[in-house]
Amino acid sequence: MDEQHVGADPCVRPTNNEQRIITLAHGNGGKLTQRLIKEHFASQFANEYLNKMTDSAIVEVNGVKLAFTTDSYVIKPHFFPGGNIGKLAVCGTVNDLSVMGAVPKYISCALIIEEGFSITELDVIIKTMKEEADRAGVKIVTGDTKVVDKGSADKIFINTSGIGEVKYNIIENKISVGDKIIVNGTLGDHGIAIFSARENLNIKSEIKSDSASLNSLIFSVLEKYPNIKFMRDITRGGLATVLNEVCANEEFGIEVYENKIPVREDVKAVCELLGFDPIYIANEGKVLMIAPADTADNVLKIMRGHKDGVNAQIIGEINTTHSGKAYMKTSIGGRRIIDMLVSDQLPRIC
Amino acid sequence: MDEQHVGADPCVRPTNNEQRIITLAHGNGGKLTQRLIKEHFASQFANEYLNKMTDSAIVEVNGVKLAFTTDSYVIKPHFFPGGNIGKLAVCGTVNDLSVMGAVPKYISCALIIEEGFSITELDVIIKTMKEEADRAGVKIVTGDTKVVDKGSADKIFINTSGIGEVKYNIIENKISVGDKIIVNGTLGDHGIAIFSARENLNIKSEIKSDSASLNSLIFSVLEKYPNIKFMRDITRGGLATVLNEVCANEEFGIEVYENKIPVREDVKAVCELLGFDPIYIANEGKVLMIAPADTADNVLKIMRGHKDGVNAQIIGEINTTHSGKAYMKTSIGGRRIIDMLVSDQLPRIC
Repeated sequence: MDEQHVGADPCVRPTNNEQRIITLAHGNGGKLTQRLIKEHFASQFANEYLNKMTDSAIVEVNGVKLAFTTDSYVIKPHFFPGGNIGKLAVCGTVNDLSVMGAVPKYISCALIIEEGFSITELDVIIKTMKEEADRAGVKIVTGDTKVVDKGSADKIFINTSGIGEVKYNIIENKISVGDKIIVNGTLGDHGIAIFSARENLNIKSEIKSDSASLNSLIFSVLEKYPNIKFMRDITRGGLATVLNEVCANEEFGIEVYENKIPVREDVKAVCELLGFDPIYIANEGKVLMIAPADTADNVLKIMRGHKDGVNAQIIGEINTTHSGKAYMKTSIGGRRIIDMLVSDQLPRIC
Repeated sequence: MDEQHVGADPCVRPTNNEQRIITLAHGNGGKLTQRLIKEHFASQFANEYLNKMTDSAIVEVNGVKLAFTTDSYVIKPHFFPGGNIGKLAVCGTVNDLSVMGAVPKYISCALIIEEGFSITELDVIIKTMKEEADRAGVKIVTGDTKVVDKGSADKIFINTSGIGEVKYNIIENKISVGDKIIVNGTLGDHGIAIFSARENLNIKSEIKSDSASLNSLIFSVLEKYPNIKFMRDITRGGLATVLNEVCANEEFGIEVYENKIPVREDVKAVCELLGFDPIYIANEGKVLMIAPADTADNVLKIMRGHKDGVNAQIIGEINTTHSGKAYMKTSIGGRRIIDMLVSDQLPRIC
């Protein structure tokens, strides 16, 4: 295999004798995504910024610390209960900057549009992006538009990249035993809303995507408690993935309590019906924070007082029982390991 | 039509009674692209940064001036004589920053990959990106990977966004009558190379994409002549498009001399055969500079001394004969207007 790479001519499409191909599971945010990124991208691009594998890279230009992030949105369908692909794109980039303690400032908007796409739909998407950008206090300052022939894209893909000004150096804070794990609300709403819309499930429910810009919530916490140890928005791969990312290769482990994890009753019902596990389902307006034990209750109070954190919960804590692993204490008192997502429950969710 | 927009529910796909749809010509960089951007994006997003409609937005964070740009690459085929989609993506973003007088610093890499894509091909593309980034002195610091189901993308799309540190305030320089127009080499190589590869034309030629990072060339000029009035890389829509962008709504016009425009003999031959006009063909390693008359010869000398400017030429000048318009003085002494590109000669070229 490696022989094909040595001195590969960059102009000639290499032959693929081994049929090593990309599968949908490479894009689900779970085990295969992480392996692909680690073995094929991070190892190749390797530098001090990328190596940290954070939601945004923290870079410096002329002494000013910036957060820089990128995300493409390929969600299907592109309109859904709770928003559309444009809202998702702005919120996602705002959140990736905010969880690094960076105030979101400028966003780019690059569109890949399939020939034949409706300009009326495009207008609504663009209007939504503008409204969400205003809400989050960011400016969309640069863009790009590509049109591809029919059948070469699925209607519309949006890439948003963003620049933020680092205000809190969260990555320098260290997680320690006893720290509490907090989420700002119910899990799984986004994934189930998308799935229902996509499959035209006739579920009589109010389940909507939770898609939201969380910078207001996040900075209302950080202003009072800049010693938050860690933050990540809980998207592809769900809570399970973030928990595993937090403790992978660490001396500590995580325990979460099943009965503390907030999940809407109707989301629970759909998950049971379809055999999904809510902790693997994507969210778009949820953040996981790790706070020192002595401030966790106050952080929770701030969250619950904010419109985006009404259903916040302390769901678990950092311990040393199983280092490098995340466990769940089940409602009936059992204990099960929380593994990374392997096969795909729901592709094209963001 | 506007009634559909007023209070449009962002969660519900609007009906499209009028069948206003996106066509390939909306993506060719010409008239329709500009109208789409102006009427549907710029008018909606409107802010002091975006309004300038430059290759990169010039923004400020904590007193530091940054250039910020984004581009998606959807080229077909993704391997071609002279490079691959990965090289294009890095060069394109490096160039969009450099033409603003900004030193390219950090780049993002967001991939949309079609299920079934070869990992061997992916590896070559990623390796090429790394090599080109090293050559240009930029770091790829953040990324994203999405996988879409078969038939929902054309193999691989790459978005690169970039941050540069503004070193020369080119946009503050004003174009004036008598300024000279310079290009750094032969036009049309990229477009014709891609077209030949795509159509499997059995043209016995050495035509290769000119794809190159031009920051080294550009800064070797700017170090000596920071009073360059304008720079733009000549990509989609070709020379004709850039000339029109330069003089649109201005008091001045442009005249270029047909016999000074550098075009390779084999590119000329293919264009004649197929009915293409080289001044509308895309390039990926060409920059147009506008220099004060008294420095133009020296700028040309610097360019010709650089590997990326060996075939540089002064091709025309700013005048007042036809304000707001670009004209070409033909080889036989005639004069023809250079219009914006309307219908597409070659889609999916970048």
